[in-house]
Amino acid sequence: MYELHFAVPMAGAVLCSLNIRHDSAMLSVLLKHSKAKLIFVDYQFLDTVRGALENMSKSGSSLPDIVLVLDEQLMSVGIDMLQNTTIDYENLVQAGDPEFEIRKPKDEWDPIALNYTSGTTSSPKGVVYSHRGAYLNSLATVLVNEMLTRPVFLWTVPMFHCNGWCFTWGIAAQGGVNVCLRNVVAKDIFSSIVEFKVTHMGGAPTVLNMIINSPDGDKKPLPGKVVAITGGAPPAPQVLFKMEEIGFAVTHGYGLTEAYGLATVCVWKPEWDALPPNERAKIKARQGVLHLGLEEVDVKDPMTMKSVPADAKTMGEVMLRGNTIMNGYLSDEKATQEAFENGWYHSGDLAVKYPDGYIQIKDRAKDIIISGGENISSIEVEDVISSHPAVLEVAVVARPDDHWGETPCAFVKLKDGCNDVTSADIIKFCRDRLPHYMAPRTVVFEDLQRTITGKAQKYILREKARAMGSLTKTSKL
Amino acid sequence: MYELHFAVPMAGAVLCSLNIRHDSAMLSVLLKHSKAKLIFVDYQFLDTVRGALENMSKSGSSLPDIVLVLDEQLMSVGIDMLQNTTIDYENLVQAGDPEFEIRKPKDEWDPIALNYTSGTTSSPKGVVYSHRGAYLNSLATVLVNEMLTRPVFLWTVPMFHCNGWCFTWGIAAQGGVNVCLRNVVAKDIFSSIVEFKVTHMGGAPTVLNMIINSPDGDKKPLPGKVVAITGGAPPAPQVLFKMEEIGFAVTHGYGLTEAYGLATVCVWKPEWDALPPNERAKIKARQGVLHLGLEEVDVKDPMTMKSVPADAKTMGEVMLRGNTIMNGYLSDEKATQEAFENGWYHSGDLAVKYPDGYIQIKDRAKDIIISGGENISSIEVEDVISSHPAVLEVAVVARPDDHWGETPCAFVKLKDGCNDVTSADIIKFCRDRLPHYMAPRTVVFEDLQRTITGKAQKYILREKARAMGSLTKTSKL
Repeated sequence: MYELHFAVPMAGAVLCSLNIRHDSAMLSVLLKHSKAKLIFVDYQFLDTVRGALENMSKSGSSLPDIVLVLDEQLMSVGIDMLQNTTIDYENLVQAGDPEFEIRKPKDEWDPIALNYTSGTTSSPKGVVYSHRGAYLNSLATVLVNEMLTRPVFLWTVPMFHCNGWCFTWGIAAQGGVNVCLRNVVAKDIFSSIVEFKVTHMGGAPTVLNMIINSPDGDKKPLPGKVVAITGGAPPAPQVLFKMEEIGFAVTHGYGLTEAYGLATVCVWKPEWDALPPNERAKIKARQGVLHLGLEEVDVKDPMTMKSVPADAKTMGEVMLRGNTIMNGYLSDEKATQEAFENGWYHSGDLAVKYPDGYIQIKDRAKDIIISGGENISSIEVEDVISSHPAVLEVAVVARPDDHWGETPCAFVKLKDGCNDVTSADIIKFCRDRLPHYMAPRTVVFEDLQRTITGKAQKYILREKARAMGSLTKTSKL
Repeated sequence: MYELHFAVPMAGAVLCSLNIRHDSAMLSVLLKHSKAKLIFVDYQFLDTVRGALENMSKSGSSLPDIVLVLDEQLMSVGIDMLQNTTIDYENLVQAGDPEFEIRKPKDEWDPIALNYTSGTTSSPKGVVYSHRGAYLNSLATVLVNEMLTRPVFLWTVPMFHCNGWCFTWGIAAQGGVNVCLRNVVAKDIFSSIVEFKVTHMGGAPTVLNMIINSPDGDKKPLPGKVVAITGGAPPAPQVLFKMEEIGFAVTHGYGLTEAYGLATVCVWKPEWDALPPNERAKIKARQGVLHLGLEEVDVKDPMTMKSVPADAKTMGEVMLRGNTIMNGYLSDEKATQEAFENGWYHSGDLAVKYPDGYIQIKDRAKDIIISGGENISSIEVEDVISSHPAVLEVAVVARPDDHWGETPCAFVKLKDGCNDVTSADIIKFCRDRLPHYMAPRTVVFEDLQRTITGKAQKYILREKARAMGSLTKTSKL
């Protein structure tokens, strides 16, 4: 995958990394939508790809060729997976022309990559990246993450998300080393850090969570400072404290597929070092300020397009513009026009702006819970619940309510051995720390399904909450 | 000066920093050529500027307004230098409109700065920088010099050379601190490093020389690693050893005005650490590889435009292309076309290429003498000397110097019957007509050997000058 991040653009083609969790149905939709000519597949996913091609075949679509990538071990035992596959990766590389002249893009705005967001099968959104944007975001990512030459980067962020937030190209630009894991588990993370002297890694809060909650036997003392870049959701205070205790320096950033990965980072100011831990954690939860490759980030009222006051209170929509914002959505002029209304990319995230210009996301537009006319930020409620010592993970969504419109409903996964905690405990814990209307009315204990970036799959939870029906019975009122 | 690096472009104007060593004659030529509208002058150079304006006035040119910059001390004693000066800097700033809307360039290729190279007075070469190039070179300079956020930069490289090699903008991009010295002397360098915890500085080999040869009383132990970026001429092994002994990490780069400052850097490979000191010094004397903002650097045969083999032996001309190469020379289409013949910028420097791609400059095609970091065109000095009534022939070459790097050395053949003219006469004659640093330090009277085409055989004279040894004795080396 890493090699292809260079080989494909250098061959004058467009890279399209697909999520390894897609099933055959979704894959066939994306292969058709992208008009892929050649598909490189790791042996682990060969069956899924074959399923996708069968679907395409049935509907009469033209099929891409398959190049199969086997790992060294499988190569040596000579496993027969090449059957029905036209090309084997290692043979393809061997047969390459060493004198092949790199095909430079005719225009720097020409596409280098196509990245599908987590859309539905009915309308996949293919985000088009340009050479220009990828170059600038790669440099900005290196700068904002404090990378010197020869970084050692541990891949826990998948390369199929915004091309690994452009770390793929950034690490090469800095002459760095890439450490890849077949399975992202704490034991392998710690042993890789020690063996390869890792300097940087990325990871959704879920990954950080896994690291700090791993058994002591899996943990190892770090050989030096390791910068851990996190995003997707703001890291909970406890996660930050524990990470720093073990020796990680956590950088919190805000990224989105349409912005090539990182767009803003909570750049740390030395004067914050002296604050009490809780204050530091609160500040680090902010999404921060734009990086050097981006022209402008603002929080605006989407109706008037006016900037919200920098009062840490007034909410608006995060909007971005500049070179590191996508060219548009592939074959979807309408969605592109909507996304760029009034000349700014509309993120759909709701945020406030602090007097120093740092932004903080309060919620996705659709994740706001409106209860009795009050806007409740589900993130704020989640922050409080996740600070409960028995809580491992939490997600809060709206539960429809006949009286209040909506009420907050919390889905909680408890830590091992904490199963005596009750709904009432969690609700009381919130009421002691939040305005009463913000405390959840419903608490459900269960394992949370998460997306690969660590976001709880809220649409599933929303469905569940909706199925519960109204908590308040109107007849009683 | 630092403030103006931001204020001028943000006002939609073009910045043109002029060398403080220019005399009034040279200044008036450049003010006319650049069509300057407004000149900001430090009180130290007010008389020179007034002289330049008088020259311009006599020739009927329209005159720029003067803004005078006084230092705080002079302000407080209320010294009357404002007489005959239209505007005072501090008052100008006070009168500014805080709501002024920054004027963005219409096109990213629009000029941001004009930088005069050490051309002759007859045809000054004004190198035009674009916003695009300055942005990219600033980021590349930060990256290549291993700057994290909040660097503390000590200015010993003047900001009028390629806008301080774009460190002006780069330091701001990284949220850094600028430490400026009115006089670049070792004592102030060391005390600034200690007081402000300097992390980075620039300096021609002359400055490094001064640092290591300063009296022990002036030296202070460094508070941490200080990266010293040097260029202009490769640092001598002794200079490198001594600098590293005191605690500096010396980075050697190759820059030129036409490339916005740094173009290549001798990026250090860890495997070189184990080499004996002399081998390390030899490698560090190489000019290295291109930075991330530049597209291509090559060593080519200027006749065939073919790359020389990477054999560390075959000489060719250093050629560059990419975004961080100038737009061209102001009002000089011919010089611009010559410089960009065949689509590459021709540096005029002769170099070899090593098998690992690192380049090393062996000689300068143009007979440039580099004295104290200043480029001196030998042709320009020759022009002045040959205008002396007693001089028949002259050739000027570089004489190696422990302190200045090089000093100009003139070989002069006097006319018959003029043998009473002395070295001191020639030097005075030059000093009356040129900036002092351009005047020869050594004058040798002898017959010049010439080629059939009439050019002095400079390589013979260079040998002779080299055999003289250093004029400045630095007994400590």
